[in-house]
Amino acid sequence: LTYAKELGERKIIDIVLSRLEKMPGMPIPFGDDVSAIDLGKGRLIVLKTDMLVDKTDVPPSMNLWQAARKAVIMNISDLAAKGAKPFAILTSLGLPRQLTKNNIEQIAEGLNSGAREYDAYILGGDTNESSDLIISCSVFGTVLKRFLMLRSGAKPGNIVAVTGHFGKPPAALKMLLKKLEAPEKIKEPLLNSIFMPKARLKEGIALSKLHAVTASIDSSDGLAWSLNEIAKASNVGFLIDHIPIAPEAEEFAEKHNLNPIELAFYGGEEYELVVTLKPTCWEEAEKAIEQVDGKLIKIGTVVKERKIILKTKEKEILLEPRGWEHFKQV
Amino acid sequence: LTYAKELGERKIIDIVLSRLEKMPGMPIPFGDDVSAIDLGKGRLIVLKTDMLVDKTDVPPSMNLWQAARKAVIMNISDLAAKGAKPFAILTSLGLPRQLTKNNIEQIAEGLNSGAREYDAYILGGDTNESSDLIISCSVFGTVLKRFLMLRSGAKPGNIVAVTGHFGKPPAALKMLLKKLEAPEKIKEPLLNSIFMPKARLKEGIALSKLHAVTASIDSSDGLAWSLNEIAKASNVGFLIDHIPIAPEAEEFAEKHNLNPIELAFYGGEEYELVVTLKPTCWEEAEKAIEQVDGKLIKIGTVVKERKIILKTKEKEILLEPRGWEHFKQV
Repeated sequence: LTYAKELGERKIIDIVLSRLEKMPGMPIPFGDDVSAIDLGKGRLIVLKTDMLVDKTDVPPSMNLWQAARKAVIMNISDLAAKGAKPFAILTSLGLPRQLTKNNIEQIAEGLNSGAREYDAYILGGDTNESSDLIISCSVFGTVLKRFLMLRSGAKPGNIVAVTGHFGKPPAALKMLLKKLEAPEKIKEPLLNSIFMPKARLKEGIALSKLHAVTASIDSSDGLAWSLNEIAKASNVGFLIDHIPIAPEAEEFAEKHNLNPIELAFYGGEEYELVVTLKPTCWEEAEKAIEQVDGKLIKIGTVVKERKIILKTKEKEILLEPRGWEHFKQV
Repeated sequence: LTYAKELGERKIIDIVLSRLEKMPGMPIPFGDDVSAIDLGKGRLIVLKTDMLVDKTDVPPSMNLWQAARKAVIMNISDLAAKGAKPFAILTSLGLPRQLTKNNIEQIAEGLNSGAREYDAYILGGDTNESSDLIISCSVFGTVLKRFLMLRSGAKPGNIVAVTGHFGKPPAALKMLLKKLEAPEKIKEPLLNSIFMPKARLKEGIALSKLHAVTASIDSSDGLAWSLNEIAKASNVGFLIDHIPIAPEAEEFAEKHNLNPIELAFYGGEEYELVVTLKPTCWEEAEKAIEQVDGKLIKIGTVVKERKIILKTKEKEILLEPRGWEHFKQV
């Protein structure tokens, strides 16, 4: 017998998908970050569901308001990567019996806040009794078919870029789970990155309108993992020549003698977009992102060979496709 | 401090709703069975999410295929009550680590089967690790605004009717949970009612097209509860003069000296539609339901006074609005 804990999340998803009949003419293939339905006249409805479970997704000292807000953000982030605008959210709650009225109010307010920050609304849902705290959100959004960004269009010669710096959330997790100390002045930005994640919705929508992006994904399972997903779906590789590490994460790594490459590429719980762009569109893309007060950081180029190589001053490293995965932790 | 277990599901829902900002112009108000979004030109997208948790929603000896199928059916049933056609389903799974590969295949096949029975597809989802088995489904459907049936339009003088007989699921639960015996020939129909529930989708859609129905709801929390929900939303009452009990449930009640009124009105886990109809449309509605091989059983009339009275040959009984509720069981 093979158990869930040995299979890991990705094999489980493959098993489930293999047993499902496919809807004919799906505008987004099975296995991309979101699902979609064609409304006709070039309009798509984009759908995403993701579940937050306290015991795996809520680090110690994150409060319930933050956890509920995060359950919304992590869904919106996937829409952002597709260039889709969220408008309505349903939420299904599994609540342990010992939660208080005040706990439930915090959860509701966190849900509302996450939705309203991105101009969406919680439309409805249901509540159930469960052992873990479960916050399952389903987000509905829209995108014009011609603006939709998929994982699968990266071409050799394209630029690969990200919408922000990496490494703060994994550093914060080390503070919370392993009690590593952080210097006073970087404590707050590190913890904030985990407690108050942001979805890069403005950036995703701005980019989608340029037709500059050839592939796009968010980085919730870690940057190396996201690069590998684009590489697989597009049948390409990457030559990465810039490590987009946040200065706070770098300082934290130095203090604790941690590998900054590990922090930048294998973190997870990060919601930056990872995109590939036509090089002729780079300046236009940079400007569009600036206009929405965002960042676009070039980290390398798409190559033909199906490998992800990180080239630093000293050496070349093969970035393995490791990433955060449910069930695999012990 | 007030805990979830004291509040009960309905108060919890009220607390959550009170903390959510309402989307302007919602075509279906908060608190109805489904949510909706206006697509323009008279078209609505209808959305519903409901979560199945093994410890409260899966009776002993129900298998995982049946449990997963049920998670789909209970969502489709709510769309049926609104006259909406489901087309796509997302599913978010919380899986205990000790589930086997075969268990997961059963779950996927049950989901697929539930969807395909009603011409819908599972479009995507995600998997997570959890203590309970959690199967959360979100269903998306469509309905023309002019066909939408709500809870709130019942008028004194309307006929109240149901799409099938009641009492089999609660009888089956007594077999499974309290080990009450059933005569051989009714065993299977009783157990089937719990293991293989059906959503009354054909019936709901057929009725919606007639403009005969003034209010509609499904009966997943029990017939008395559903009547009370229509009564509240429509500000009316009911005079019930026929107990729509299934012959198998009646036989089971006799054998075990159970109150058939209790079985028929306070069961839950039943997915019949409860509708009120304009009396002038009755024959047309009966015929439309016959054409989809369904049943429409008249059980009483809508009255002005905000009470639900059951009138039998012997006496008049006030039907209290009790119903199945999460958290309230001990």
